[in-house]
Amino acid sequence: MEKKILLEENEIPKYWYNILADMPSPIDPPLGPDGKPIAADALTPIFPMEIIKQEMSAQAEIPIPEEVRSYYAYWRPTPLIRATGMERALKTPAKIYFKNESVSPAGSHKPNTSVPQAYYNKLEGIKRLSTETGAGQWGSALAFACKLMNLECTVYMVKVSFQQKPYRASMIRTWGATIWPSPSNQTSVGREFLKKDPDNSGSLGIAISEAAEDAATHEDTHYSLGSVLNHVLLHQTVIGLEAKKQFEKIGEYPDVIIAPCGGGSNLGGISFPFYRDKFAGKNVRIVAVEPKSCPTLTRGEFRYDFGDSAGFTPLMKMFTLGHNYAPPSIHAGGLRYHGDSPIISYLVKNGLMEAISVDQLETFEAALLFAGTEGIIPAPESAHAIRGAIIEALNAKQEGKEKTILFNMSGHGNFDMSAYDDYLAGKLHNYEVTDEEIRQSLSSISSI
Amino acid sequence: MEKKILLEENEIPKYWYNILADMPSPIDPPLGPDGKPIAADALTPIFPMEIIKQEMSAQAEIPIPEEVRSYYAYWRPTPLIRATGMERALKTPAKIYFKNESVSPAGSHKPNTSVPQAYYNKLEGIKRLSTETGAGQWGSALAFACKLMNLECTVYMVKVSFQQKPYRASMIRTWGATIWPSPSNQTSVGREFLKKDPDNSGSLGIAISEAAEDAATHEDTHYSLGSVLNHVLLHQTVIGLEAKKQFEKIGEYPDVIIAPCGGGSNLGGISFPFYRDKFAGKNVRIVAVEPKSCPTLTRGEFRYDFGDSAGFTPLMKMFTLGHNYAPPSIHAGGLRYHGDSPIISYLVKNGLMEAISVDQLETFEAALLFAGTEGIIPAPESAHAIRGAIIEALNAKQEGKEKTILFNMSGHGNFDMSAYDDYLAGKLHNYEVTDEEIRQSLSSISSI
Repeated sequence: MEKKILLEENEIPKYWYNILADMPSPIDPPLGPDGKPIAADALTPIFPMEIIKQEMSAQAEIPIPEEVRSYYAYWRPTPLIRATGMERALKTPAKIYFKNESVSPAGSHKPNTSVPQAYYNKLEGIKRLSTETGAGQWGSALAFACKLMNLECTVYMVKVSFQQKPYRASMIRTWGATIWPSPSNQTSVGREFLKKDPDNSGSLGIAISEAAEDAATHEDTHYSLGSVLNHVLLHQTVIGLEAKKQFEKIGEYPDVIIAPCGGGSNLGGISFPFYRDKFAGKNVRIVAVEPKSCPTLTRGEFRYDFGDSAGFTPLMKMFTLGHNYAPPSIHAGGLRYHGDSPIISYLVKNGLMEAISVDQLETFEAALLFAGTEGIIPAPESAHAIRGAIIEALNAKQEGKEKTILFNMSGHGNFDMSAYDDYLAGKLHNYEVTDEEIRQSLSSISSI
Repeated sequence: MEKKILLEENEIPKYWYNILADMPSPIDPPLGPDGKPIAADALTPIFPMEIIKQEMSAQAEIPIPEEVRSYYAYWRPTPLIRATGMERALKTPAKIYFKNESVSPAGSHKPNTSVPQAYYNKLEGIKRLSTETGAGQWGSALAFACKLMNLECTVYMVKVSFQQKPYRASMIRTWGATIWPSPSNQTSVGREFLKKDPDNSGSLGIAISEAAEDAATHEDTHYSLGSVLNHVLLHQTVIGLEAKKQFEKIGEYPDVIIAPCGGGSNLGGISFPFYRDKFAGKNVRIVAVEPKSCPTLTRGEFRYDFGDSAGFTPLMKMFTLGHNYAPPSIHAGGLRYHGDSPIISYLVKNGLMEAISVDQLETFEAALLFAGTEGIIPAPESAHAIRGAIIEALNAKQEGKEKTILFNMSGHGNFDMSAYDDYLAGKLHNYEVTDEEIRQSLSSISSI
C-alpha cells in the first residue's frame, strides 16, 4: 500500500469547478447600500473584470489560464496521504486520508487563489494589491503571488496577530510586501478607530475596511480577499478536483469530507467538486468544523450582514454572529470571523452540509496526536479538521464500521509554535460564548 | 516542460550508496586515545552494532530496511525542481535544478538519517537517544524520528541558538523530546564549562561533549549524530540516488553539483552517488560551499583532530580549524563547525571535490532572489548552495555556455525569519577570519 497518492504535473486541473452552476436553487445575491443587488460595475474600482465575472458566473467549469497552471506547478498537485500512523494510534477500522495543502511555499492552501487573483489583476494593468490578514496565512500567500508577478502588495495585519506572530510579518516582508499593523494611520477608517481607542488591537473586520479603502482610493490599486467570496472558493476547488482524481486512482471514494471553516475557502475548495456527485444522489457527508469560541454556522443567524466592521462591503446573506462580534483570541486566528461564505451558509441552511464546533484544547490534543503519528505539525486552524476526523474515526470504531474519511490539512504550524508552547505549558483555555453575547452582537445589526 | 521531476513511492531507493567501497585509496581511520585505530567494540556504549558496521563497511550498496523505507515515504521521494524563475531572473543559458529536501516534516534533509538511526537503536532495545543541535534542524529531525518510533529523546541545544530560535525548541518539544540549553548542568562536562563561565553561550563542540557523556553514562541510552560520520553521510545518499534517477528520467546529467557544507551530510548525500560515475571517468564537478567565517575546507589544515571541544570523541583525519575554534555567530548555524566529514575532507584534499567560501551578505541576497523567483524561503545554510549556483550560472552566461547545474535545497527558512528580519533591516555583516586567528586556533591542538 502506498502512503501517498500522487498525481503528475499534467494532472493539475485544467478548470475550476463553479458550484453555483449546479445549486438546487439560486443563492441570494449581495446587496448594495440601496438594498438592491450589486451590479458588476460597482465592483470595478476594487476587482478586475475577470474576477467579477467569475464571482457571478453560472458556468460549471471555468478554464484555468495556462500561466496560472504553470505557477500552480511550483507546488501542485499536492499529495493525498493515507494517515496510517493516526489510524494505528486510534485503532480504528476507518481509513483516514488527508490532502496536504501545507506543501505550498506559503505553507497553506491560500496561494491557490492568491496566484490567480494576482494574475488577473496584472493582466488588467493593476500595479498594486491591498489586503488584510489575520493570522498571516493569507497575507503571506498574497505577498508570494505578487512577488512572482512583480506586483506591489500592501498588507493590513490585525495588530494583535502582528505582535503575536512576528515571523509571519517577516515572511511577508521577505517577499517584498509592505505591512501595516491594523488599525493603522494609513487609512481614514484606521485613524477613526485609533482616535476612539489608541490601543485598539484590531480585528479582521477593521483590517478588511482598511484594505478596501486603500484600494478604492488609489487608481492603480485593487483589493484582494482570501476567503468568503465565490471566486475565492472557486479557485480553491483545485484541492477537491485533485482529491477526486486521487481517489479514482485507488478505486475509493470518501464517505465523509471534513475541513476547518473560518470564511469557508479551504472547506469549499476540498468539498465542492464532490457536490457534483452529491447533487446527483451520491451519498457523501460534508462536515464543517468551527471553534466553539466563534460558532458562526452552529449558533449564528442566517441573514444579511456586512463582511467587515465598518460596513463598507456589500451585504451578504450568510450565517453571522454580527459584524461587530469580537471572538476570544484563540490561536486559530484564521477561524475568527463573524460571518461565512454565502455558498457555505446556503449549503448548511439547506441541510446539504453539517457543521460542528470544537473546543480549543481538544484541537491541540488532536494536533499533537497528528504531529506524533504523521510527522506534520499542523496549523491550529487545520487541527480543527483533524479533531473532526478523530471524532468520525472513533465513531466508526464504536460502530465497528469501515469508513473512508477525508480531511483537509490546510496548512502547517511552523509559524504557530508559540501556540504549541502555550498548550504544552498548560496556558490555553476553552471559550464558550453565551447565548446572551450572541444575541447582543446580533441585535446591533438589527437595523440593516 | 515540467517544473518538477517526480518519482513514484516505489522508486524510493532500496539501498544506500557507500562511497567507501569505491574510494581510490583507503581513508585514514579514526584513532583512539592510544593513537591506534578505534575498534568496533569501543563504540558499542554509544552506537548500535548495525550503525557501527555501516560506519566501517566496505560494501558499496547497503540495503535500506523496509520499515525505514515506509517512514521515508512520509515525504520521499522529494521533487527535483527546475528553477525556471531563477534562470529567467539571471538571464543565464544554464539550466538550474534543485533537489527540494525542505519538504520533510522537520523541514530539512536531516530526517534521512534520524529515521534509520532511531530505527536501528529501537531494534537493539535502546530506550532513549541523546544528541546535540546547533540551529536546531538536527535536534528537531531526531525528535521527529524518536516520536514516530516511541523512543525518548534528549537534545542539548547550543545556548545562543536556543535563545535566538525559540521556535525550533518548541518544535522539538512538540514532538515530545526533552531539550536542554548547552552548556547545561545535566552533565559533568556541562557543569565544568559553567563553572569556568556561567554565561558561556555554548558551541556545537560543547553540546556534542554533553550528549556523548549522557549516552556513555546511561545504560539504556545511545548517542546520535547528525553529520560528519560515515554512516550519516551514507543515509543521506538517498538524496543523490533519487536525483540521479530523476535526471535519467529527463535524459540529462548535471555538469556541476553544489551543496552547502558544515559537517558535510547534505553535500555527501547529494554528491556521493554521482562519484560512482566520476570515479569511472565521468566529467562532473562537485562544489562545497562554506561560509567565509568558518572556512574549514578552504583555509583549515588537513590533520587529525577531535570532533568535539572537550576531546571525548575519537581523533579524525579531516580539515579542521582547531577543535576550540569559535566561529563568529552567523545565522547559518549549521555551518559553524570547526571540522568536517573525513570522507569530504579526503575528496577535497585529493582534488576530487572543489570548495569555495562565500560571505554572509551575498548568501542572503541569493536567498531573496530564490524566494522571489521560486517561492521557497531557504534556510541560511541552503542559501550558500544557492549563492554557489548563481556563481556558476553567471559564469555560464559570461562564457555563453549551456550548462546543467544541480544544487541541494537542504531546508526551508521558516524557523530563521529573525535572520531575514536582520538582513532586511541592514543589521547583518560579513566576517573575514584572519590568518593569525586560524594559526592560533590550530596551534592549540599541535600537541595531539
